[in-house]
Amino acid sequence: MTGPRYTRLISSLPASVPFIGPETLERERDRAFTARLGANENGFGPSPHAVAAMAAEAGAIWKYGDSTSLKLREALGRFHQRPADTIVIGEGVDGLLGNLVRLLIEPGDAVVTSDGAYPTFNFHVTGFGGVLHKVPYHDDREDPQALLQKAREVDAKLIYLANPDNPMGSWHEAGVIEDMIAQLPEGVLLVLDEAYVEMAPEAAVPTVAVDDPRVIRMRTFSKHYGLAGARVGYAMAAAELIAQFEKVRNHFGVNRVAQAGALAALNDTTWSVYMTRLISGARTRIAQIAQENGLQPLPSATNFVAIDCGADGAFARAVLEALAEEDVFVRMPAVAPMDRCIRVSCAPADELDRFAAALPVALRRARQR
Amino acid sequence: MTGPRYTRLISSLPASVPFIGPETLERERDRAFTARLGANENGFGPSPHAVAAMAAEAGAIWKYGDSTSLKLREALGRFHQRPADTIVIGEGVDGLLGNLVRLLIEPGDAVVTSDGAYPTFNFHVTGFGGVLHKVPYHDDREDPQALLQKAREVDAKLIYLANPDNPMGSWHEAGVIEDMIAQLPEGVLLVLDEAYVEMAPEAAVPTVAVDDPRVIRMRTFSKHYGLAGARVGYAMAAAELIAQFEKVRNHFGVNRVAQAGALAALNDTTWSVYMTRLISGARTRIAQIAQENGLQPLPSATNFVAIDCGADGAFARAVLEALAEEDVFVRMPAVAPMDRCIRVSCAPADELDRFAAALPVALRRARQR
Repeated sequence: MTGPRYTRLISSLPASVPFIGPETLERERDRAFTARLGANENGFGPSPHAVAAMAAEAGAIWKYGDSTSLKLREALGRFHQRPADTIVIGEGVDGLLGNLVRLLIEPGDAVVTSDGAYPTFNFHVTGFGGVLHKVPYHDDREDPQALLQKAREVDAKLIYLANPDNPMGSWHEAGVIEDMIAQLPEGVLLVLDEAYVEMAPEAAVPTVAVDDPRVIRMRTFSKHYGLAGARVGYAMAAAELIAQFEKVRNHFGVNRVAQAGALAALNDTTWSVYMTRLISGARTRIAQIAQENGLQPLPSATNFVAIDCGADGAFARAVLEALAEEDVFVRMPAVAPMDRCIRVSCAPADELDRFAAALPVALRRARQR
Repeated sequence: MTGPRYTRLISSLPASVPFIGPETLERERDRAFTARLGANENGFGPSPHAVAAMAAEAGAIWKYGDSTSLKLREALGRFHQRPADTIVIGEGVDGLLGNLVRLLIEPGDAVVTSDGAYPTFNFHVTGFGGVLHKVPYHDDREDPQALLQKAREVDAKLIYLANPDNPMGSWHEAGVIEDMIAQLPEGVLLVLDEAYVEMAPEAAVPTVAVDDPRVIRMRTFSKHYGLAGARVGYAMAAAELIAQFEKVRNHFGVNRVAQAGALAALNDTTWSVYMTRLISGARTRIAQIAQENGLQPLPSATNFVAIDCGADGAFARAVLEALAEEDVFVRMPAVAPMDRCIRVSCAPADELDRFAAALPVALRRARQR
């Protein structure tokens, strides 16, 4: 008896996964983390109105969700001043990135991203047989002109740019992104990952025409809105592109209770303003902790702060591992020279207190190695 | 400015979607249904332990779920007496069917199913460029020998069989399925969709070796467990096949609260027995309502009953439409001769009362057309 006949593409793919989750790490070390600061989750949690809406909808969990997520799309349409048919909801940005890559990329097609940018996007590109071309970060920021230049060189179908950036927390002003869009070669789509944009300065949010066929923007309820476990992301683009998602998406894939939670979270604009302040305060606190330990925090437009540990990737890795020994979970960039940093998520004071207590211990231990 | 360059496959696909959901239908008619009996949901709802577990986990919704769903897989492993690495969790069976098709099917590959079987499976096959070969139902049941014969003819990579069947509610005894598996040609994978199996007679559940490379079984928490809106399905197959899902799935795609709910639902075996009785009682009630109206209910191993309306598809469609005018939502098979039936989901007594009141009205109106 032989097994199934996989596609040639599947047979050629590695078994690697983009991220090892914190639960898996905890099992491997056989001990829980007491500060969960590595996954850019938002420990402040969602709006109480979102919590209440989810509790109210829980009794209807026996029903499939609305496959069109229409109420949520209409609310997002009002929020962003665009028609609902220019928005699609998915199981997080991860799910939507997979759908998008599937729409555009067949084996051999070229895709451009930054070396060290979001691994899950790369996972999808490779998973559909695309060829990744990476350009370096410049001064800890993704480099729009280098991305454009590479896209021209390789005739890319897709460019990935996160603004603000993960893992560095850096950002570009709107004008820089708008200039980049103006220079996009014909037939190149820019996927603008704005997962962190609600926590960025207003000036970092570019203006893109609702019907611009050259750009798709990714947004999420996982970060600012504190609903990572709910799995609700959305994409905004010209209606013609959004309509293509119907051909490939998992139509009933979004949790019904999550739909209700996201809608309530979006509508609670008071909480949103409050969250902006909480995040800003936590960023300041993380930066202070870094400075108190003689380390350099990088400016951040996100709900995390990259901290320059002042040496190479091996040293930052040693700090990260020593923090884990103190039960503090953080991550770090994968590529030099950004890998001189560790990346610490914003969180409530008690978790940051634990980070503050652990960091000097971790640094001492890392320096002794 | 031109739009993005889609793949050749995507450009060739129709814009059709497998199902129009009840919320969309309600908006189109500008009126809510008072009996939601068309989507094979389970209005009895989930175990109270599942509800409690979800409420308890709601406070952790800011965390991503465990990307490996390990606790749930381990519990399923104990339940099914198989290792956790022979089980994968996904965003409903729909999501897992999409993943599976992606693993096996590239443009031009042959797939065999029954004409009138699950449309979402067909959606995925077409979506990955597969060529669907359909064989007719035989006596309102899927026809294992015809499926095998067609698979040999067209060198299929994949055969789809639902046992029990949707939309007819019919089933095969375990021996019939086991015989079919024994006769599978080399390199043909049987996807055995067992979404309704918990509500079927024990005798309908085939024995398949844990490491049998020829079969993958699909199960769900949407039907028997009453958690359709949560989006938790699972697949069971040889570890080597299950491992392939890591290459393509949305790793953090399952809602964290839903993971907790599914785990608690699985563990509440008392509720599960109770649910079997509730479903059985509702099936009997639906059959009685049919008979009181001079219609023939078909035997069912699922949480729905197909009712033979005694004439052709046009008549059954007229009954369905007249039921909708009475605010009762049901569906019907798409293909003759099964389309002589309407398909009515099990539900609590008050909803079935509404169906009982609406059916004679609907029949009268359909006969007058």
